[in-house]
Amino acid sequence: MRVLFAGAGALGSRFGYMLFKNGEDVTFVDSWKEHVENITKNGLKVIIDDKDLGNYYIPTYYPEDVSGKYDVIFIATKSMQLRSMLEKVKHLIHEDTKVICILNGLGHVDTLKDFVEEKNILIGVTVWTSGLGGPGVLKAYGSGKTEIKQVKEDNLDETLKLIERLNQAGLNMNYSDNTYQSIWHKAGLNCVLNTYCTLIDCNINQYGSYEKHLDLTRAILNEVTAVGHAEGIDVKQEIIEKNIENCFDPKTAGLHYPSLYQDMKNGRLTEIDYLNGEISRLGKIHNIPTPVCDVITLMIHSKESVNGNK
Amino acid sequence: MRVLFAGAGALGSRFGYMLFKNGEDVTFVDSWKEHVENITKNGLKVIIDDKDLGNYYIPTYYPEDVSGKYDVIFIATKSMQLRSMLEKVKHLIHEDTKVICILNGLGHVDTLKDFVEEKNILIGVTVWTSGLGGPGVLKAYGSGKTEIKQVKEDNLDETLKLIERLNQAGLNMNYSDNTYQSIWHKAGLNCVLNTYCTLIDCNINQYGSYEKHLDLTRAILNEVTAVGHAEGIDVKQEIIEKNIENCFDPKTAGLHYPSLYQDMKNGRLTEIDYLNGEISRLGKIHNIPTPVCDVITLMIHSKESVNGNK
Repeated sequence: MRVLFAGAGALGSRFGYMLFKNGEDVTFVDSWKEHVENITKNGLKVIIDDKDLGNYYIPTYYPEDVSGKYDVIFIATKSMQLRSMLEKVKHLIHEDTKVICILNGLGHVDTLKDFVEEKNILIGVTVWTSGLGGPGVLKAYGSGKTEIKQVKEDNLDETLKLIERLNQAGLNMNYSDNTYQSIWHKAGLNCVLNTYCTLIDCNINQYGSYEKHLDLTRAILNEVTAVGHAEGIDVKQEIIEKNIENCFDPKTAGLHYPSLYQDMKNGRLTEIDYLNGEISRLGKIHNIPTPVCDVITLMIHSKESVNGNK
Repeated sequence: MRVLFAGAGALGSRFGYMLFKNGEDVTFVDSWKEHVENITKNGLKVIIDDKDLGNYYIPTYYPEDVSGKYDVIFIATKSMQLRSMLEKVKHLIHEDTKVICILNGLGHVDTLKDFVEEKNILIGVTVWTSGLGGPGVLKAYGSGKTEIKQVKEDNLDETLKLIERLNQAGLNMNYSDNTYQSIWHKAGLNCVLNTYCTLIDCNINQYGSYEKHLDLTRAILNEVTAVGHAEGIDVKQEIIEKNIENCFDPKTAGLHYPSLYQDMKNGRLTEIDYLNGEISRLGKIHNIPTPVCDVITLMIHSKESVNGNK
């Protein structure tokens, strides 16, 4: 099975390594020069749970240098790079290429539809985590699982067989009708913790230590829930609230600074347009006021602009 | 004329010095030990426009150590200390004591009414600035003016005579029916610049450099204006917006960090409850939704809490 990873960052390279090690024909494409060069020269160095598992010579190219036909394309970019990556790899998307997208945030199916037939789009949400320890170095911990669903459910048998094959490599994917709900539940959590931690300048435990944190949480989640319901998603706000509270414990995620906080600090653009920004956009479509998500999105963009992030 | 300054901080000590120098019988009360001790021992050291104007032995006490009768009491505390200061000096407020309050922010008249008859309350708004260069040291620049109005306009002649007398010392006070409007216009500006600069972590010029700053500004001012109108104040939003834009120039206020930003950075509690917090409180009374001021107020309080400010 030929599998392309469009984006071989933290999560892409982790899944890619797992499939490669299990004998699949894996190709990476990425635009980060040092990353592509290091993997090509030395192989992908894999460190999992602090154990060095060796170097893996997975073919790695710039997107424009790849041709041919792939059975599966994993999109594993940052949210804001989804469209430009699809532009770069669209010549590789054929009639029967399945495109798997498990990016964080909301609104990706609309973008994917501009490039891929709905029966070939697999949208998902994962709790796998991963990281890079520099260009060419995968550094990850623990394990995870992924919920996935085909946007238009034609030929589902084929898809289920594909998932079975991916799971032989340990990807732990689960075809689920609750996938959209799970995507929204994860996005809802990120709409709250990513933004407030960045603007208040605190970690997740500190956010939870303020006595009125639930008022802050609900100011955003009330909007997420209303917009989600208008979109036909069975968003259960009480579950998101519970998930958020479960992150406060310093023994779990409490001492972490969310990814958006880290992007902001490190001079990168953030994924805000795929979180609160998408709630604002959808709110306008459904005529649902989203004043809090509107102002939070503007503040994050203002902070990016003031910091000169790009 | 016996004048008490309840709070001899930056602005209090500046006005107090002006009146003392002009021969008025001025007393300071303050709770900051080093400040009281330094003024008592060495006099208030006055530096204006970088010129050392000498030391002035203005009698300075802790509030509880003062007794007697004053013609005028200037309240010159931080907004959140207004009530506790009034508690401490209420034995000095007599039937014919005028109480002048020119604190920043909103809601002070309601607090004053609990201690002072309305005909004796003079509420105002000033563009004088001032600072302290350490305990016992006044360090100020330029000049200013103050608009003032009596809450209940009995015996206005007496008040106008009082203002004339204060102006002999250069206080540049102007009795004006537009005072409430001016208070709201100043508060509206502070509701925007104080909060956003603190949460985005930027100076005023940087705030103005974001291309959508007007969207951020209006997210708050729309609420301020609606609530102000419900309170019977002729708030002119376009004037506040113009005043805000006038602060962006680095040659004027652009490079400044607003007072709330500085309080936050320096571990102090902020005046948020007398700015956006008061808009939220009044909004509830008038049944006007104020989601942006609500969430901004919560975020500022969360940041105070996370920082351990007090």
